[in-house]
Amino acid sequence: MREKAFIREVGPRDGIQMVKTILSTERKLEWMRKEAAAGVKRFEATSFVPAKVVPQFHDAAEVAQGALTIPGIEPAVLVPNLKGAQRAFDVGVPKVNYVLSASEMHNQSNVRRSTDESIEDFRRIIAERDARGLKGKVEIGAGIATSFGCTIQGPVPEKRVVEIASLLVEAGAQEVSLADTVGYGNPAQIRRLFAAVTKVVGNVPLAAHFHDTRGLGIANVTAAVDVGIRRFDASLAGLGGCPFAPGATGNIDTEDTAFLLESLGFDTGIDIEKLIAVRQEVETWLPGERFFGMVARAGLPKTYRDTTAAAA
Amino acid sequence: MREKAFIREVGPRDGIQMVKTILSTERKLEWMRKEAAAGVKRFEATSFVPAKVVPQFHDAAEVAQGALTIPGIEPAVLVPNLKGAQRAFDVGVPKVNYVLSASEMHNQSNVRRSTDESIEDFRRIIAERDARGLKGKVEIGAGIATSFGCTIQGPVPEKRVVEIASLLVEAGAQEVSLADTVGYGNPAQIRRLFAAVTKVVGNVPLAAHFHDTRGLGIANVTAAVDVGIRRFDASLAGLGGCPFAPGATGNIDTEDTAFLLESLGFDTGIDIEKLIAVRQEVETWLPGERFFGMVARAGLPKTYRDTTAAAA
Repeated sequence: MREKAFIREVGPRDGIQMVKTILSTERKLEWMRKEAAAGVKRFEATSFVPAKVVPQFHDAAEVAQGALTIPGIEPAVLVPNLKGAQRAFDVGVPKVNYVLSASEMHNQSNVRRSTDESIEDFRRIIAERDARGLKGKVEIGAGIATSFGCTIQGPVPEKRVVEIASLLVEAGAQEVSLADTVGYGNPAQIRRLFAAVTKVVGNVPLAAHFHDTRGLGIANVTAAVDVGIRRFDASLAGLGGCPFAPGATGNIDTEDTAFLLESLGFDTGIDIEKLIAVRQEVETWLPGERFFGMVARAGLPKTYRDTTAAAA
Repeated sequence: MREKAFIREVGPRDGIQMVKTILSTERKLEWMRKEAAAGVKRFEATSFVPAKVVPQFHDAAEVAQGALTIPGIEPAVLVPNLKGAQRAFDVGVPKVNYVLSASEMHNQSNVRRSTDESIEDFRRIIAERDARGLKGKVEIGAGIATSFGCTIQGPVPEKRVVEIASLLVEAGAQEVSLADTVGYGNPAQIRRLFAAVTKVVGNVPLAAHFHDTRGLGIANVTAAVDVGIRRFDASLAGLGGCPFAPGATGNIDTEDTAFLLESLGFDTGIDIEKLIAVRQEVETWLPGERFFGMVARAGLPKTYRDTTAAAA
C-alpha cells in the first residue's frame, strides 16, 4: 500500500483566469470530466469573483452546479469575500476555499482591504455557513496568498504567515493552504515555513499552492513533501497567473507534479498518460496560450514505478 | 561566509552537440568569456569526439586552446576514449572528463564497447597521462552516464553504478559525476544513489549532471544538495541532449540552477542578471532552438537573498 498524496486541479480556476479565450461552460465541465476519468478527484472548479473583475468566471454558478454532477469528484470553489461565499452556499458546493494575502499590499490590490479585515471576513463566512445550517456539510478552507513573498511588497514576515494561519484555524478553517502566488519560494523557505505553520494548525490539514514562475516549483513540492505535506494544487500544463501579481505566470504543472509524487512512491490515483491526453485536447481549446510542463513532452520513463522509493 | 557551490557550464559541450547551428570557434569562446564575466568559472568547453560523430566539435582543439587563454576559468573537456584523451593532453587542458555509461546498451550505442571495456580504457587514459608526466598537472574526472536509468535498456541497477564509481576511483578518477543523461531520476533516487556512492569514493568529490527532460531537474539538484553534493553541471538556457538518448533534451538550466543554489544560501559566484544577458545574446546565435529556464523570463524576486536560508 503506497501512501496517498492529493493533487487538486486548479486549471479551471487559477489556470484560466488570465487566458485570452473565454471557455464555454460546457468546455469547463468537459475538462473536469476528462481529468476525472484520468484519476484527478479534487478540483477548484471556478471562482466566485465578480465577472467584471475576471470575465472568465461569469458562469461561476453554472460551472459549480455542473461540477456537482460529475461522479466521484470533490469540487471546490474559490471565494474572495462573504458575497462570493454566499453565492457558493446558494449553489451547494461541498467545499469553499477562501483566499487572502499575507502581504498587506497584495491584499489591498486584490480585495481592497487589510489582511486583518480579510480575516474578519473569513469569520463572517464561517458564521454565515453555520447560520445556514451547513456546518458538517460544507467544508471551508483558507488559502494564504503571497506566503513566501510578494511582487509588490517584497518580503513577507514568516511570523505573520504563522499568525494568520493560527487565526484562520481558530476561526474555523478546515484546511489551510500556503500559496507561493508569485513564485518567490525556495525549498529551504518552504520547509521552514510549512514546519512552523504545522505547529499551530493542530489537526487541520495543510496544503501547498505553488507557482513555477522561477523554475523552483517542483523542487518546492519535494521540499513540502519532506516536511509532511500531502496536498498540492496544480494546473494542467502549468497554466495560470494572478491579475494582481505581474509576471506571476504558471502554477506548477499537474502532469509533472503527479510524475514527481508517483516517482517518490506516492499514490495520486492519476494515470499520467491519460492526463497528457486531456492536456492535448485542452491545448486545442486555448490557442495562443503557453503550455508548460516537461513530462507531457518527453513521456514517462521506461523505469516508471520500477525505481520508485517509498516516501521518506 | 556562505558555503560555496559550483556550477560547471556545459553549454559549449552538451548544450550544442545537437543544435542545428554550427557555431564558429570565436563564438564558442565568446560565450565562455561572457559567462566568465558573469561569474561562471568552470566550463566543459568542448568534446574530443570525432567530428564525423558530432560535427559541432570539429574545432575541439582550437576551442580548448582558446579556453586556456580566458583568465580565471577552469576549462575541462570531455573525452569518450583514449584517443580523445590523447588529443586533450596534446592541447594541455588542466581537466579532462571521461564518460562511460552504466547502461551496457547505452554504452554500446555511444562508444561501441562494454562498460567494463570502457573502465579498462579509463585505466589506459590515466596511464597515458602519467606516462606523459602530467600527473598533478592534469586532473581526470569520470562521469557515469545513465546512472538513473536508460531510454534503451530501462532500469540500471544501483549496485552496478556504485561498483563502477568504486572502480573508477580505484583507477585514479579525481572526480566522479553521476549523470541522469535521459532525465529519469527522481529526488528519492538521487538521494539514495548519491549517498551510496559517497560511501565508496573516499575523498574524491562527487558531482551531479542532470537533465530536466521530465521536469524534475531542479528538484533533483535540491535532493543532491541534501546529501552533500556541491558540484553541478548545467547548461545555459537548458540547452542539450544526447545523440544516443532519444528525447533526452535539456540539461538543467544554468540560470535556474544558480537561482536555486543562491536561494538555498550557497555562494555560486554567479551574477544571475549578467548570466541572463549572456543567455539573451546566445539566443540570437542559435535560431530555431528552444530555450528553457524560468528565472530568465520572470527575473529575480524582490526578495532575492533576503529570504535565503543557510544551507541545511
